[in-house]
Amino acid sequence: MAGAGAAASDELKVLGVWPSPFVIPVRIALNMKGLSYEYVEEDLYNKSLLLVGSNPVHKKVPVLLHGGRAINESQIILQYIDELWAGTPALLPSDPYERATARFWAAYIDDKVRSAWVVMVFRYKNKDEWAEGVARAGEALDTLEGAFRDCSKGKPFFGGDGIGFVDLVLGGYLGWFGAFGKIIGRRLIDPAKTPLLAAWEDRFRAADVAKGVVPDDVDKVLAYQQVLLAR
Amino acid sequence: MAGAGAAASDELKVLGVWPSPFVIPVRIALNMKGLSYEYVEEDLYNKSLLLVGSNPVHKKVPVLLHGGRAINESQIILQYIDELWAGTPALLPSDPYERATARFWAAYIDDKVRSAWVVMVFRYKNKDEWAEGVARAGEALDTLEGAFRDCSKGKPFFGGDGIGFVDLVLGGYLGWFGAFGKIIGRRLIDPAKTPLLAAWEDRFRAADVAKGVVPDDVDKVLAYQQVLLAR
Repeated sequence: MAGAGAAASDELKVLGVWPSPFVIPVRIALNMKGLSYEYVEEDLYNKSLLLVGSNPVHKKVPVLLHGGRAINESQIILQYIDELWAGTPALLPSDPYERATARFWAAYIDDKVRSAWVVMVFRYKNKDEWAEGVARAGEALDTLEGAFRDCSKGKPFFGGDGIGFVDLVLGGYLGWFGAFGKIIGRRLIDPAKTPLLAAWEDRFRAADVAKGVVPDDVDKVLAYQQVLLAR
Repeated sequence: MAGAGAAASDELKVLGVWPSPFVIPVRIALNMKGLSYEYVEEDLYNKSLLLVGSNPVHKKVPVLLHGGRAINESQIILQYIDELWAGTPALLPSDPYERATARFWAAYIDDKVRSAWVVMVFRYKNKDEWAEGVARAGEALDTLEGAFRDCSKGKPFFGGDGIGFVDLVLGGYLGWFGAFGKIIGRRLIDPAKTPLLAAWEDRFRAADVAKGVVPDDVDKVLAYQQVLLAR
């Protein structure tokens, strides 16, 4: 992780691309904590010197710049935000076992949902592979339906009464889920199969902190996918 | 993450296989915290009901059982241990930015070193792929040489004066690095290329908490590899 020496100020800046499932959780987390930040849209095919210099190892978004120092990797940034601005609302629970459980499901999403998403975005032109990606996403969502039941304990979010770590990590994908839903002709989080998660999706999208961050224009997301596929 | 209800006691049990790069860090962390635990050796080809029931999602080691509740995933277990037994020695630093930096390098190892290790273990019979795995490990170790310089600030470990999170995650691989070294006829962490890391390896292996946990019998590790390859 690169940093430009000691923090010169408490200025917050996010380097991102608007539909990224990894950038969206960071922006919502900053909103939840009531922190104002500058958002800088990156062009993945013409990365800024600031991005390359801030994340020289991976050269990927999101990067959080805080007082000139760079923090990289979506889930690591979320934990940084939660530890530095430790007040309410908390992203992770305080109990170590519950924290481990939240980290487990976040890692699960980063493994199973991410890999299905990669297929659905980048292998769109191969119908068999694409269908396989949709099926794998469905399997992961089935598992997450059970996780939601266990974690939420009847409350609205994985994090209980409010949005938490697991909500943010899964919520980052909802713009793409909406776009994939238009392709397959039904919601990817299928109310008939995973009713708890489908209701969760509605609540997450409706949250003030997610407004303007979770993409709701499916045609715009699909157009972005075509840009990615054209490269 | 499954659990058998409320904690019945504070009993600690680790389900593992002895050469696993993911199990070894957990055992050393428990040693560092001065916690006694029961170690249960698993047969990956005939997994115990306890393992399958404790990690129904992945069915993988390590599992830490604490008072009957299961915690899964190596780095998540390390953080659980560090949060629950928060006293000295700490695995993660207290400063949020330094914590993010340690998590960043641990994630880097889990990505780049792990993927090279998978090739070196499981693609051993394909000479080209194997050589490619060695080369990729070398590239990752070059990057980690710089990370060590930045993190250790002239002290013995990534964690400073003592073994920390990054040390544990990388140290889990040293038994295999020793075995691969016998195959390639030089140390995988090459003192000529990465002198700081090579000296770190010597210090890590010599630490009391690592004794009997980091495998030092390279022939035994190589024999275990043959068992894996025969399946």
